[in-house]
This record gives sequence, structure tokens and C-alpha cells, in this order.
Amino acid sequence: MKNFDINEDPHRRFNPLINEWVLVSPHRAKRPWQGQNETIATEALPEYDSTCYLCPGNVRANGANNPTYENSFVFENDFAAMKQDEIIFEEDIKHTFFKAIPEQGISKVVCFSPKHDLTLPEMEIDGIENIIKTWQKEYTDLGNIKYINHVQIFENKGSVMGCSNPHPHGQIWAQSSLPTQVEKTHNSLKSYFDKNNRTLLEDYLKAELRTGERVVIENDHYVALVPFWAIWPYETMIISKRAFGKITDFTDEETNAFAKILKQLTIKYDNLFSTSFPYSSGIHQAPTDNLEHPEWHFHMHFYPPLLRSATVKKFMVGYEMLGEAQRDITAEKSAEILRQQSDIHYKLSKK
Amino acid sequence: MKNFDINEDPHRRFNPLINEWVLVSPHRAKRPWQGQNETIATEALPEYDSTCYLCPGNVRANGANNPTYENSFVFENDFAAMKQDEIIFEEDIKHTFFKAIPEQGISKVVCFSPKHDLTLPEMEIDGIENIIKTWQKEYTDLGNIKYINHVQIFENKGSVMGCSNPHPHGQIWAQSSLPTQVEKTHNSLKSYFDKNNRTLLEDYLKAELRTGERVVIENDHYVALVPFWAIWPYETMIISKRAFGKITDFTDEETNAFAKILKQLTIKYDNLFSTSFPYSSGIHQAPTDNLEHPEWHFHMHFYPPLLRSATVKKFMVGYEMLGEAQRDITAEKSAEILRQQSDIHYKLSKK
Ligand SMILES: O=P(O)(O)O[C@H]1O[C@H](CO)[C@@H](O)[C@H](O)[C@H]1O
Ligand SMILES: O=P(O)(O)O[C@H]1O[C@H](CO)[C@@H](O)[C@H](O)[C@H]1O
Repeated sequence: MKNFDINEDPHRRFNPLINEWVLVSPHRAKRPWQGQNETIATEALPEYDSTCYLCPGNVRANGANNPTYENSFVFENDFAAMKQDEIIFEEDIKHTFFKAIPEQGISKVVCFSPKHDLTLPEMEIDGIENIIKTWQKEYTDLGNIKYINHVQIFENKGSVMGCSNPHPHGQIWAQSSLPTQVEKTHNSLKSYFDKNNRTLLEDYLKAELRTGERVVIENDHYVALVPFWAIWPYETMIISKRAFGKITDFTDEETNAFAKILKQLTIKYDNLFSTSFPYSSGIHQAPTDNLEHPEWHFHMHFYPPLLRSATVKKFMVGYEMLGEAQRDITAEKSAEILRQQSDIHYKLSKK
Repeated sequence: MKNFDINEDPHRRFNPLINEWVLVSPHRAKRPWQGQNETIATEALPEYDSTCYLCPGNVRANGANNPTYENSFVFENDFAAMKQDEIIFEEDIKHTFFKAIPEQGISKVVCFSPKHDLTLPEMEIDGIENIIKTWQKEYTDLGNIKYINHVQIFENKGSVMGCSNPHPHGQIWAQSSLPTQVEKTHNSLKSYFDKNNRTLLEDYLKAELRTGERVVIENDHYVALVPFWAIWPYETMIISKRAFGKITDFTDEETNAFAKILKQLTIKYDNLFSTSFPYSSGIHQAPTDNLEHPEWHFHMHFYPPLLRSATVKKFMVGYEMLGEAQRDITAEKSAEILRQQSDIHYKLSKK
């Protein structure tokens, strides 16, 4: 019998945002890998690609012509997962086993810039500020539509994350319902706020800043950290220091600081394995249901799949799908490794 | 405005086993795909591979020698996610944000047969019965260990599912706690049974057999179906007709019928895209905590990633990770397609 050592012994950690556990196996990081290797795009991309349906001036799948845009550019997804049509629905949704409800929504694509080869970590701060302003406008405009109660802003980066076009872009799926993961978060934030009159993330952030061991980047207005309960090897969260609920609450200073932390975090990611680092990222913020949401605290999640190198990812498969998320490196170790990465992009430092 | 048509209109469906929703976009199945293609192993494997650490007589990573086994073969995972060591633990687990608890467990590997190239759909029924008996023995032996309260039997098949060795094998992770997904299922089964005095899956199965539209295979003792709330394109569940909680409750007839439905389902899967069909599968059954579990109803999940072909999979990424699982083909359509697949393996019918 030995005393519990969180840096060595298998254990479970609890995620109070969604009330789920993760199994952590610190000792397992040295497992050899003989399985699938990801292929990574290594050739440099051109600044403009005439076959890209996102580049300025090009024709899209549905025949529409992109404008010769100069900053970010937003259009409705040609293959949207939801439709705007209002649907008449009179079925008995109380059926225990066959419960289905129509869902109204809008999907948009946000091109980050006209340049086919310009990823977030390589952009100038004002270019990133421009994306933030686009997100603010979309959150407002979509949120104002009567039947839209939730606006999900996200990015799938890299082919390993299902991204089918390397032209840097994100997506927005806006809809009537709170999606499952957001609803879980909402419930946790709400019950914490009702009890403590402070947001859960305000108190969590204070506790994290006290120990510092999972903090990756801190600036005047935001902190990027590996959450204590992270499931992906290099998962991070950006949390605002001030407790506010949505991207439209940013002051000008906060917009600038958010652009900076986005750039700095994605540079560290790229530097980690000297690759254009794949991830899915997304913003969790207050619903657009016209109610007050003092419990909501703006934050952004980064879920990157890579584990050991540019080509070896973590598989969330059998045990993880049937049992519970599992990780092979502690959040503290990951944070330390990310913290140590240079703030200068590897492509620039090579020159 | 039009009336809701579940076969055409975007909608959400509810999964009463884990209390989560899935977004269904029937109209989106025709989306063109320009993204990542999976590489698939097409060369035939040898019956014996001297470099395989699972083949009979070969040496494993830790130096141990495999016996020259003739049926299935079980050994402890050389890189287990959990350890058997008892850990002294006195910390305050009530901490809101940094809640961690040591976890004891055992991981095993189950080689399905000595043959390096013999997958489940290609095995004889008595070979599969032999695997079932091995699972029963492990469930019993591991379950009898004092600190083991849950035994997760699963298989990761195919490199796209993180499987690092093509020699057909599954795994067993046994541990003290109920893993997250099992706990959710447990709670749903329990509250349903407490209210109705029948298992949730007993009643669900009756409802499914009445409509028949999601049933893929039915034999005397089991049904394989695409659950109403499936998230993966060709996800299925095998449910026992009789309400019992665990694999050790099988009668001899039920063992035989289970072997048959396993073979038939995996043949249909292989035939779907004329490939050795990848998936993660696993059995959900009663905890091994020495309590009675009349609420538990034995079932097996299959989570296959492929969507359109042997090389194009569904990506559960941005929206799915941050929002909610999403699918592009209805469960009814998938069931119909699977039902239509031949019961003779494509490799045999080619000859
Ligand atoms: O134990 P294996 O087969 O090496 O590993 C595989 O299955 C495990 C259990 O689902 C996962 O944790 C790993 O990510 C996966 O690569
Ligand atoms: O919309 P895209 O980029 O074509 O598709 C990608 O992102 C979507 C939202 O996360 C997923 O549903 C798809 O599986 C993925 O391939």
C-alpha cells in the first residue's frame, strides 16, 4: 500500500462543468505506438488557390460566386445540418422511446481572411480582432432571430478533425435548442451561481491562478489553461478574468487581449510538434433567449487530438466510448510542456 | 410551413439510456466529401505473423512468451490504464474544482483465436462460442475480485479505431467505479425499473419489434437493431429478448444464438462497403458489486465510424464535441441498408 500520488497513480478526475469523470493514467505515457499514423500536409499552400471554394472570387458548390473579400467573409453553409423552415409538429413528444422534435437552425461558414494559407497563429493581431468582430456581429444578428436560442461558434482545423478545406475558416451553427453539451454546462453554471452568487468559472479561475500549475498563458484579461479535468492530451480553455456571459460584452481592451491570447496559444500549439496543429475549438457563451444570464461565463474550448507527435493522435474509442474518457498524461504535465513552447512561430524562428 | 416529416426534416432525437439528444439531418446525406480519406489495409494477412505480439509462441513487448494457444487466449495488458495496487487516500474529495480519486483496476487482452487473419465474421460459430465462454469466465473471475465493481468487455477493430494490431482481439478493463457512460445507463435503467417493474430495454425492444423498421436481425433470443437515437451512421445494438443482466446468465441456447447474431451482424457490416468493417463494440451489463440488479438488461453496442464508403468516415468533431452528436442519415435508412446486406461474407461470395 502506498500513498496516493496524483502524478503517478491511476485516478479519476471530476469535471464540474458537465458532471462527468475522466480516467487519468499518468504511468501509461510511455506506451509504444504501432498503430495508425496520421498523414499531415507538409507542402506549403499557395496564398490563393483557384480550386478552393473559399478563396475570394471563386465559385462555390451551389454555383454562388464569392466576393473578392478583404477581411473575413461569412456565407450560409451550402450543406447545412439544419434548415430555417418552420415545421408544424403535433406529435406526442412524450413517447418514452421514440421522442423526436423538429429543430430549426442556420449554419454559416466564416472565412478568417482571403489568404488560403494564413492560419490563426500566423495572422496579425488586427486580423484576429477582425474575426472577433465578425463573431460578435453573427452572435448578435443570429441571436436576434426569434427562434434562435443558441449560437455555436467553432472551428475544425486540420483534416484529422474532419476539415475538408485547408483555407482557414470556422463555422457557426445557430439553433432553437441548447445542444446537449451546452445544456449540461448551463445547468452546472446555473446551480453554482444560484448557490454562490458568483460564476463557477470565476471561482475556478481564482483557484487555478493560486496554484498556477495548469496555467499556460495569462494576460490582463484572459487565462489559457489546461483544465484539471481535461480529456484530450493538450486540451485547453481560455477563460475571461471578468465574469461576463458573451462575446458582445467584450470591451475594446478585452477584444485586443483575446486576439492576443488566441494568437499566442495557437503559436504554442504549432510549436509543440512543429506542425499546423489540428483541433476543434469553440466558444461557450450565454443562450440568445432574451433572458438574463448572470450565471454564464464566457469561455473557449480547444480539443486537439495529437498525443505524441504530429502524426500520433489519441484515440477516443472502445473504453472511452463505452466507459469513460481516458488520458495518458496529466493535465499538469501538458500545461508545463505548452508553457515551455516559444511565443515565436516555428516557421519564423527557422528563418 | 409544412408538416414534420421525420425522414426529411432536421430534428433531434432523445436517447433514454443516457438522457442525451442527437441532431439528425436527413437531407444532408448528399453532401459532397473533399476531406480526409482513411487508408485501409487491403493486402491479405498471413495466418501467422512472426512479428505479431499476439500470435501463438511469439514474444511480447514485456519479454513474456505467448503460449501456443489453440482457442482464445487472455493475458494482462502490458500497458494497462489502471493498476491493481491499493492506494492510501485521505484527501478531501469534496473539493469543488480539484476532485480526484485513485482508481484500481485490471486490463486484459483477449485474442479471439490463434489465427492472425481470422476476424469475427469469418469465424465458425463454435469459435465465437468459445470467445463468449472466455468473456463469461473473465466477467466471473474479475467480478469476484473484491474491489472490482465493473467489467468492461470491448473491441477496437481497425486502425481507424485506434487498434494497433490487426490480429483479432478485444480488451477487458475491470475497475472499482462505474465508468461515466455506464453510470448514466445504470441510472436510467434503475429509474425505469423502479417505476415499471420491467426493464427499459424489455419495453424498448417490444416497441421496436412492433414497428420493425429499425430491426436488422432477429433470432430466437436476440435482436440487432439500429437504435432510434443512434449517433454513428451504422451504429447498432444487440439486445437479449429475455430480460437478464449479465453474460453469465446465458443459457446454452442463448450462447449459441448470441454467437450466431454476432457473426451475422459483422458479416453484414463487412459486406456494406466490402471491407473489414471497423468499429468499437462493447457489452453493457450489470455491475459486479454483489448486489441484485433486476434493472439491468444485457446489451452490446457497436459504434462504427464509416459513413459513405470504406474510406470516408463520419467525424465527430467541432459541433459534435461542443454541442451535440449529429448524423446525416436516419436510423431507419441505415437499418434498411444493413438489412439488405447478404448473410454470406463478400470474400466467400466472390469465390
Ligand atoms: O489499449 P490499446 O489497444 O493500445 O489502445 C486503444 O484502446 C484504448 C481503449 O479504448 C484507448 O485508450 C487507446 O487510445 C487506443 O489506442
Ligand atoms: O461542415 P463540414 O466542415 O463539412 O463538416 C465537418 O464539421 C461538422 C461540424 O462539426 C461535422 O458534422 C462533420 O462531420 C465534419 O466533417
